[in-house]
Amino acid sequence: MNTLPEGLVDALARDRADNLAGFRHRFVVPDHELIYLDGNSLGRLPKTTNAKLHELVDREWGDRLIRSWNEGWFDAPQRVGDKIAELLGAASGEMLVADSTSVNLFKLGLGAMRHQAGRHKIITDDLNFPSDLYIMQGVIKSLDRPCHLEVVHSDDGIHGPLDKLLNAIDEDTALVTLTHTVFKSSYTYDMELITRRAHEKGAMVLWDLSHSVGAVPIHLNACDVDLAVGCTYKYLNGGPGAPAFLYVRKDLQDRLENPISGWMGQKNLFQFTLDYEPEQGIRHFLTGTPSILSLTAIEPGLSLLLEAGMDNIRQKSLNQSAYLIDLWESELEPLGFRLNSPRDPAVRGPHISLGHDEGLRIDRALIEKKNVLPDFRRPDNIRLGIPPLYTSYEDIWRAVQAMKDVVVNRIYEEFSTEAPVVT
Amino acid sequence: MNTLPEGLVDALARDRADNLAGFRHRFVVPDHELIYLDGNSLGRLPKTTNAKLHELVDREWGDRLIRSWNEGWFDAPQRVGDKIAELLGAASGEMLVADSTSVNLFKLGLGAMRHQAGRHKIITDDLNFPSDLYIMQGVIKSLDRPCHLEVVHSDDGIHGPLDKLLNAIDEDTALVTLTHTVFKSSYTYDMELITRRAHEKGAMVLWDLSHSVGAVPIHLNACDVDLAVGCTYKYLNGGPGAPAFLYVRKDLQDRLENPISGWMGQKNLFQFTLDYEPEQGIRHFLTGTPSILSLTAIEPGLSLLLEAGMDNIRQKSLNQSAYLIDLWESELEPLGFRLNSPRDPAVRGPHISLGHDEGLRIDRALIEKKNVLPDFRRPDNIRLGIPPLYTSYEDIWRAVQAMKDVVVNRIYEEFSTEAPVVT
Repeated sequence: MNTLPEGLVDALARDRADNLAGFRHRFVVPDHELIYLDGNSLGRLPKTTNAKLHELVDREWGDRLIRSWNEGWFDAPQRVGDKIAELLGAASGEMLVADSTSVNLFKLGLGAMRHQAGRHKIITDDLNFPSDLYIMQGVIKSLDRPCHLEVVHSDDGIHGPLDKLLNAIDEDTALVTLTHTVFKSSYTYDMELITRRAHEKGAMVLWDLSHSVGAVPIHLNACDVDLAVGCTYKYLNGGPGAPAFLYVRKDLQDRLENPISGWMGQKNLFQFTLDYEPEQGIRHFLTGTPSILSLTAIEPGLSLLLEAGMDNIRQKSLNQSAYLIDLWESELEPLGFRLNSPRDPAVRGPHISLGHDEGLRIDRALIEKKNVLPDFRRPDNIRLGIPPLYTSYEDIWRAVQAMKDVVVNRIYEEFSTEAPVVT
Repeated sequence: MNTLPEGLVDALARDRADNLAGFRHRFVVPDHELIYLDGNSLGRLPKTTNAKLHELVDREWGDRLIRSWNEGWFDAPQRVGDKIAELLGAASGEMLVADSTSVNLFKLGLGAMRHQAGRHKIITDDLNFPSDLYIMQGVIKSLDRPCHLEVVHSDDGIHGPLDKLLNAIDEDTALVTLTHTVFKSSYTYDMELITRRAHEKGAMVLWDLSHSVGAVPIHLNACDVDLAVGCTYKYLNGGPGAPAFLYVRKDLQDRLENPISGWMGQKNLFQFTLDYEPEQGIRHFLTGTPSILSLTAIEPGLSLLLEAGMDNIRQKSLNQSAYLIDLWESELEPLGFRLNSPRDPAVRGPHISLGHDEGLRIDRALIEKKNVLPDFRRPDNIRLGIPPLYTSYEDIWRAVQAMKDVVVNRIYEEFSTEAPVVT
């Protein structure tokens, strides 16, 4: 008679008690041996996505051809945007899906800075996703007045510098832009607190929700958020490079310019007049023709999240993170792994980063030798994504055993310290 | 014994003699009764596109997951760009596929204007696609010096104002930006002549190739073109809203800024440093994460064009346009149809616009009653797209008979003069 390891028995019991466990079967899982812990970078493929794409390609493109623009495509950026709005506590007509997160940041960042004439400062932190800083550096070059980006530094590289940020916001601050859940450590900001402080000082906020959307409950309207962007290919499972979303609070929509003023945001665009005159409402934040294939692939994943419910998702996420941190403490900390995410669940998002001096080589060994797939973020972070909809406790337990094995048996030593292009 | 109308017999004979006729069978044509004349707006679906998307979704996304970024996705914008470069007489490494045509126009237009410090004028014409003007109006707002857009007007609304344009280019001209084949009349500019004049005066050129790419031979390097953009969903058959391309001549790549400076254009992007430092070469014109689904769908159509050869395609296009103009002259002109495209094939692109006082209602009647699908462009243009790879002479003959019938029997009278959202 085989007896299972005690830890595995415990993990399997947790899976049986998990009321969201059934959602795993709504995703394509072709390789059941693979332990996929990178859904924070690219979410899994929902089972209904292929049928949806087939319908789009065969019937809407192949058969209906150009007529499909009047039969749903033209409204797609708003239709998918409304579904995301439902997930994020925003109203219908406050969101669009279009372009990339970086392009949307540029549009809203520059639009906000022009609106905030007379103020000179954009505030962010050094835990933000670098593209957000690069884009703000570009925004500043496109302004008609000298402005600067103030980057507030984290003390430990893990926790957001909340107090320093709150103190930095002053009467000269035009815009505060932060990633809600930061990409390395998973630290998650208090959206309501920062937004309120910004508003007290007359500043606007622009939140990047890429690493929290679909995993952490977000209430954009309740927090009175001005502007937000985010990506759809992580916890929303929209597919590689799926178009991003943007949010503009209703009362700001007609007061903010879209600096990349293209025809999709033009009033009565098929009149083809020569001077740009923005459409009213959210639609003037569109620029070019939307990518219908990529847009369409976003809807199946969104439906799954709405069906599961954000509060249920967050509860499972908290349970699984706590479970992983417990395993880390008992089995991995003695082997040199550090917890590079906040211990306090109130300020922690959905992924967990574990640091190790041999982090990169351990990551390579997990992928090549153990069929465990996290990612690696410099300098030392093995980043473990545990999207609640398809990650099992068994996955987590097995991943921890694999990390132990890689270190105890020095399996990582055969790997190079040079990273592949995409880590 | 049935006897076919003489005109149809003639059309069928032309189809039998057409050495590109076989390419029609490489596209999905589910409704053989539909006469599709809007491939200049949305190209048909190549038969191999579905298999390619399946491979992408099932294997690359569903199975390989995040690993696919290292197994082809990361290079996709350049790989597909190189294929377009082959079609347009540009070198490998001079093109990218990313974002929309409008976003690419903004990047290259603003990049060029910053490079041309000290000059104050952008020149375009009133036949240009309006989005191109809207974008340039946005570019001007993002400059640190007062600049203006000079719109040169066409005398007849059909022919480009070539001489007036050449005369307008002066020492204060920073940039000349035109659509190569204009969207209403199909007038096609002499790319070499305008580019040379611009260079003589120290100006740069930015060509929008959306309505000529895949139908008119283009030689970007031979014409010494500085910058170009274009769309992939018309004659390239890349699918609805497929991402656009951009071209930057090799020697300019490291001298021009990408104003929407995102992480995909960053040097060693996975180092995640906080200051933007552009990658060398074409790649720094990338901004955000590319839409892999939409990008992948572009390749099958491109392969068909490369296989057919641009000179063969242009020859068939000229033959079919001449045939259509002959039919117009003998059968439609007497019914009040006007030729709103140039008569001279040397300055005409691949589509033909026919004007009529009842243009909009005729267009609606063709679609609703005759299963003929052109589009309509204000004020009076019935725009007939005849992409050589899948349009038959029989299609053209039948479309002309349908237009006759709609006017002779006043079928259009039951339709409203109000246009649907997308015309």
